[in-house]
Amino acid sequence: MEDYLERLKRGSLKLYALEQELPADEAARVRRAYIESVSGVALPAIGAYTIEVDRVAKKNCENLIGAVQVPVGVAGPLVVHGEYAEGSFYLPLATTEGALVASVNRGCSTIVRAGGAEVRIFRDGMTRAPVFAATDVIHARRIVEYVDAHRSEIAAAAESTTSHGKLTGITCSVAGTSVFVRFEFDTKDAMGMNMVTIASAEAAELIASETGARLIALSGNVCTDKKPAAINMIMGRGRTVAAGVLLPDALVRDILKTDAATLAEVNMRKNLVGSARAGSFGFNAHAANIIAALFIACGQDPAHVVEGSLAITTVDPVPGGVYVSVTLPSLPVGTVGGGTGISPQHECLQLLGVAGGGDPPGSHARKFAEIIAAGVLAGELSLLGALGAQHLARAHQALGR
Amino acid sequence: MEDYLERLKRGSLKLYALEQELPADEAARVRRAYIESVSGVALPAIGAYTIEVDRVAKKNCENLIGAVQVPVGVAGPLVVHGEYAEGSFYLPLATTEGALVASVNRGCSTIVRAGGAEVRIFRDGMTRAPVFAATDVIHARRIVEYVDAHRSEIAAAAESTTSHGKLTGITCSVAGTSVFVRFEFDTKDAMGMNMVTIASAEAAELIASETGARLIALSGNVCTDKKPAAINMIMGRGRTVAAGVLLPDALVRDILKTDAATLAEVNMRKNLVGSARAGSFGFNAHAANIIAALFIACGQDPAHVVEGSLAITTVDPVPGGVYVSVTLPSLPVGTVGGGTGISPQHECLQLLGVAGGGDPPGSHARKFAEIIAAGVLAGELSLLGALGAQHLARAHQALGR
Amino acid sequence: MEDYLERLKRGSLKLYALEQELPADEAARVRRAYIESVSGVALPAIGAYTIEVDRVAKKNCENLIGAVQVPVGVAGPLVVHGEYAEGSFYLPLATTEGALVASVNRGCSTIVRAGGAEVRIFRDGMTRAPVFAATDVIHARRIVEYVDAHRSEIAAAAESTTSHGKLTGITCSVAGTSVFVRFEFDTKDAMGMNMVTIASAEAAELIASETGARLIALSGNVCTDKKPAAINMIMGRGRTVAAGVLLPDALVRDILKTDAATLAEVNMRKNLVGSARAGSFGFNAHAANIIAALFIACGQDPAHVVEGSLAITTVDPVPGGVYVSVTLPSLPVGTVGGGTGISPQHECLQLLGVAGGGDPPGSHARKFAEIIAAGVLAGELSLLGALGAQHLARAHQALGR
Amino acid sequence: MEDYLERLKRGSLKLYALEQELPADEAARVRRAYIESVSGVALPAIGAYTIEVDRVAKKNCENLIGAVQVPVGVAGPLVVHGEYAEGSFYLPLATTEGALVASVNRGCSTIVRAGGAEVRIFRDGMTRAPVFAATDVIHARRIVEYVDAHRSEIAAAAESTTSHGKLTGITCSVAGTSVFVRFEFDTKDAMGMNMVTIASAEAAELIASETGARLIALSGNVCTDKKPAAINMIMGRGRTVAAGVLLPDALVRDILKTDAATLAEVNMRKNLVGSARAGSFGFNAHAANIIAALFIACGQDPAHVVEGSLAITTVDPVPGGVYVSVTLPSLPVGTVGGGTGISPQHECLQLLGVAGGGDPPGSHARKFAEIIAAGVLAGELSLLGALGAQHLARAHQALGR
Repeated sequence: MEDYLERLKRGSLKLYALEQELPADEAARVRRAYIESVSGVALPAIGAYTIEVDRVAKKNCENLIGAVQVPVGVAGPLVVHGEYAEGSFYLPLATTEGALVASVNRGCSTIVRAGGAEVRIFRDGMTRAPVFAATDVIHARRIVEYVDAHRSEIAAAAESTTSHGKLTGITCSVAGTSVFVRFEFDTKDAMGMNMVTIASAEAAELIASETGARLIALSGNVCTDKKPAAINMIMGRGRTVAAGVLLPDALVRDILKTDAATLAEVNMRKNLVGSARAGSFGFNAHAANIIAALFIACGQDPAHVVEGSLAITTVDPVPGGVYVSVTLPSLPVGTVGGGTGISPQHECLQLLGVAGGGDPPGSHARKFAEIIAAGVLAGELSLLGALGAQHLARAHQALGR
Repeated sequence: MEDYLERLKRGSLKLYALEQELPADEAARVRRAYIESVSGVALPAIGAYTIEVDRVAKKNCENLIGAVQVPVGVAGPLVVHGEYAEGSFYLPLATTEGALVASVNRGCSTIVRAGGAEVRIFRDGMTRAPVFAATDVIHARRIVEYVDAHRSEIAAAAESTTSHGKLTGITCSVAGTSVFVRFEFDTKDAMGMNMVTIASAEAAELIASETGARLIALSGNVCTDKKPAAINMIMGRGRTVAAGVLLPDALVRDILKTDAATLAEVNMRKNLVGSARAGSFGFNAHAANIIAALFIACGQDPAHVVEGSLAITTVDPVPGGVYVSVTLPSLPVGTVGGGTGISPQHECLQLLGVAGGGDPPGSHARKFAEIIAAGVLAGELSLLGALGAQHLARAHQALGR
Repeated sequence: MEDYLERLKRGSLKLYALEQELPADEAARVRRAYIESVSGVALPAIGAYTIEVDRVAKKNCENLIGAVQVPVGVAGPLVVHGEYAEGSFYLPLATTEGALVASVNRGCSTIVRAGGAEVRIFRDGMTRAPVFAATDVIHARRIVEYVDAHRSEIAAAAESTTSHGKLTGITCSVAGTSVFVRFEFDTKDAMGMNMVTIASAEAAELIASETGARLIALSGNVCTDKKPAAINMIMGRGRTVAAGVLLPDALVRDILKTDAATLAEVNMRKNLVGSARAGSFGFNAHAANIIAALFIACGQDPAHVVEGSLAITTVDPVPGGVYVSVTLPSLPVGTVGGGTGISPQHECLQLLGVAGGGDPPGSHARKFAEIIAAGVLAGELSLLGALGAQHLARAHQALGR
Repeated sequence: MEDYLERLKRGSLKLYALEQELPADEAARVRRAYIESVSGVALPAIGAYTIEVDRVAKKNCENLIGAVQVPVGVAGPLVVHGEYAEGSFYLPLATTEGALVASVNRGCSTIVRAGGAEVRIFRDGMTRAPVFAATDVIHARRIVEYVDAHRSEIAAAAESTTSHGKLTGITCSVAGTSVFVRFEFDTKDAMGMNMVTIASAEAAELIASETGARLIALSGNVCTDKKPAAINMIMGRGRTVAAGVLLPDALVRDILKTDAATLAEVNMRKNLVGSARAGSFGFNAHAANIIAALFIACGQDPAHVVEGSLAITTVDPVPGGVYVSVTLPSLPVGTVGGGTGISPQHECLQLLGVAGGGDPPGSHARKFAEIIAAGVLAGELSLLGALGAQHLARAHQALGR
């Protein structure tokens, strides 16, 4: 240990090179000790992890010093009627924000009492959009024409890099001399960003070499990855999924302690008019909370919560109750790759019956997306209900009832 | 154990009620066993946590069954010249996405070689915007007039609920009969959502009782919390902070393996033009990645990555190099409350010298915000550099150089 | 004539220089003849204008060759209950789109039958936001600090250029090294863009000279002029005004041939959910149509229809009917300057009782804004009603009623 | 006359019914007299129109009382190298905003000196998106599936209503129980809104009857018509067109009195970073000004300036100069229908060589779109140049040069 610390201090050993000389666990221990020594801060809790670090150090995280532990609570059971998810599920929610699990749990009860959430997937495709520079707008048009005329060659180039991914669409957009080519892939059970990036690189090289376009960046932000963007809301990215449930008046009254008209008004003034007035792309109450908690529990990329937050919640008055829905236009999820293989995260996926690749391929990721949508519905119901109940209580108070 | 499981199965004991009968650790164990039994999935890794669950079960997570462990790597040292953060820092990044830590690390090296990142905070305030219903637009105007004329009474009501928070601003906006009153508070070292919600409730009740406005929801989405929204980009939410660094040509060439003009072009076509073309509110490469990793490591609310993703990255050509900056209009962070007290997370904050309340109050959260901005700058530099280097390599190849 | 044409052809006389040698009317005639000769197209109708061209050639339009004539129809009477507009008005609508006047007219009848439209102004200020370059983020912060600390000096500089305008607010925003300073002025009866630009120039020079900021452009697009922008929706630009009307069930049935629930549903699915799904900043049916027609009739700047289109329409179910409202966050209008002095346009303003400066100053522009809002309300009511009636008709048909 | 006025006053004759008893010109005269009498305002200038009112009263404007006259100036010649527009054009600009024509004129000179503007069209399609209500998300999916599986039947239904229009695309989007079906048509030389609305009605009825979807409104705002919307920016609406020009350094210096680096910096900080910071969908300087002036001159629907304002302007530094471009993602224009047949407007279209239907059909509208794009480029160049020249002047002054 001392020897390593000495070499690290002298600079003759690089912090990131420890794994070349030591097993991952040892390397993390030495690195942590080094950080403790230069910072003067003891890091025992970070070091008290119990996950397998060999794989983690190779696949998930460089310069490993340990782990943080994010508490996991369960909400449920939640009854889901999807095309892939059918049955009753306990949702593992990794969160440090008190009241979130309790809130989702209440939403789950409401949904169960109503007979379960209906869920459907509307679109499924992971995207990557390289940006090319053209010399002028005429060249830009020629590049677009090339892409339009050579879709099968481009697909062949892209798919040569992957045994799973299928190129399912190409959309070009132009801003002067910048040409963005948005590739969309079916990535089966993977979230698919890496697969798609590698495949797009191959396709992009072909386009560049055939058209003289200069490839500026493999991601030109028209993808759009991890930034809030209307394009994802409109054209989808990852899975586009909607969940809904019909709540009879009695249920709204008994469980949510409010009434249909109030629920509808809260949703209208808050989620629709309020978001409009704020220039928001998210027309929901707190979809990001549920998505973040499920994503961290299940080893998803947490920066994709950004895309997830583009959700729309609706409350339709119907005879005898309300129909409440959430639509997630852009939900990038996967059940293989990323953090899905780390033991606790893997167990969370197992708990939902979606760990690893599905049979047929893609069915696990789709089932997972359906469950998430139902979970978001539970979260929305619970918060809207709470807001409505308070509002109703206030109204009663004011009226002396 | 068996007895509890039996009662849970029979429904005579509720899953969430276990803590009423058992210590938190036991309760989690029983609950986990129950979930294992109904799901048929073993959850040993989720149960193999080492954090103190007493506090966690009370404050952070209901229906606790254990924890997931998110690997933490360090990037750095990163030299920061802020008003609160001054010196050298190792960034703890909790992530499962391979290559992220390495990438940020390279950005840190670049910044260090350039003499450090300059950082400044431009605004600081946590917001909450209740929505009220007016009977008509005349009533709506009267409500707005009341608020404008009674700021000190409203502030007094709001601040009666908190010993830390200060009401620093009120902005009204109206859409027909919906009146949104956006309160902004200085919340010192807390991220402040709870404080602000409680204070806003008091202020909202005053407004309602004085004007006859019906309080529809304590959050009317004009806040805007955890949804991408232009209002946060424009008016700020949490800390508004910018970081920048001047990179001499030699440094761009030696470390980033590209050149100033290429860096500027990549940023222009990708982060500015590309995001514009995608209808995006985020004009950056991958700010959300760094923010998510730091947030999870440091016990922040991960759904706030949504606000963080509204970052703008710029690359200005200057004589002899480039000045690269990132601006985060909306960064909700805190060093007390939420998940900041869980041991590993607390250690991450300690590593940055920002655990707990600062002296003076607010200085820890501000220091933390400055470090995050510098970290995002490192991430942007690294990715833009990598894209630029590939582009340059391709250009050289094409030109036979 | 021949002589002038000859010189124009030879290039010894510039097309724009004709007014230096000829009275405006003659100059226009010669110029038109020249254009006819080089294009081979006869332009008699363009030449058959009857407006005074002397003033027009000096103030409104260079290189004059004549005029187009835009048909004006009237809708009304429309009863308006504002703070400035009180009474009954006929709206002059300049349009070439058949059915528009008829549609607005039907909306006016509905409003009149309901007792008139209530209108209120919520904000009033024209903005201009120069952009400065700072050397780095520290300098950027210093510039912002200077502005915050020297508001009265800046106001004095700005107001030294105008006898009417008052600086009412300054807001800074920063993106790295770009500093945007958004000045807001009360411009009384003028739309005020020119006044504000001149005043901002003076203020900007002061800021530049005191801080070393480089003034890049007098308009830095944070104003935001004639581009759709969330900042105008959120912070206002021009007049922010809302109009509303309570429609009893009988009225909805008799005049609009639909019912309250249908109106509410059409508005919800189209104006709220539809616009949300399209990534729109306009949550209305066709506000731009009415604004364009009134703007062209009344000599306003028609490019400001862009700002006008940021309207939100709401339909609230209330006991016994619906309350329908429109809110125009950003309506730049004036009753002096621009095209307001051209005779037919002036008459249109007179018809509304708002020609020229008001007493007190500002009252004409505000009255005008109130009437426009009521006009937009009429337009929205009529179109929503028509959609609702068709929908209802279809529903009846389907049900065999 | 007196008799009619009497009947109008008594209410036994409706204002809109005058054309049933009188020729259009007489009807307008009586109506004007009536309005004069009830308002007490004389309207001679509105009555001094010289356009043919018979056709106008039938096709363009109900309740006609006369016309406003909008001054028309010419800018040019402007050299355009498009696929449809090739040659030299004088632009007719109808405007009341002094300096606009002069500014565009200067831009035209610059472009001519640079050899002309290159222009290309990238997409061409007018859209309409009815909104349907589904009973639940399962029904919503079934509706989408029906549409996907029956494109040719739907196209046949739509095209049965028109001899010109062709259905070129259908895109579905869903928000809970609201299903939006966005139809895109090739409308040849017509702007096409009416054609598309009628065709969409037929298609919508088919979808409704086959799926049980309730057709709520023929326009569900996903079209998006006359509201700023990301969907138009991303997917196009009307013609998507880009224009560009290469300006050598000498030209920038001689005509624009600035330099390449300054032009690029002004564009970056104002049009890109400034618009980003303002949450804008328009990344240009004043595209709406030029579009409004051309639209009014040429009888276009002026409310479509909203779509036109979604332009992106870029300035690329290139060896020896700059390449400046504008991209208009959504430019709805037509050369037949609407106000294109009114004599002065028709002459303006003739001046551009695009009056009436083209041969082949569509070629006139496309030529027109190309010319507009080149005109916008001229306007952008001129304003950016002016801003840059002032900035440069200031810089020189400051440096004592």
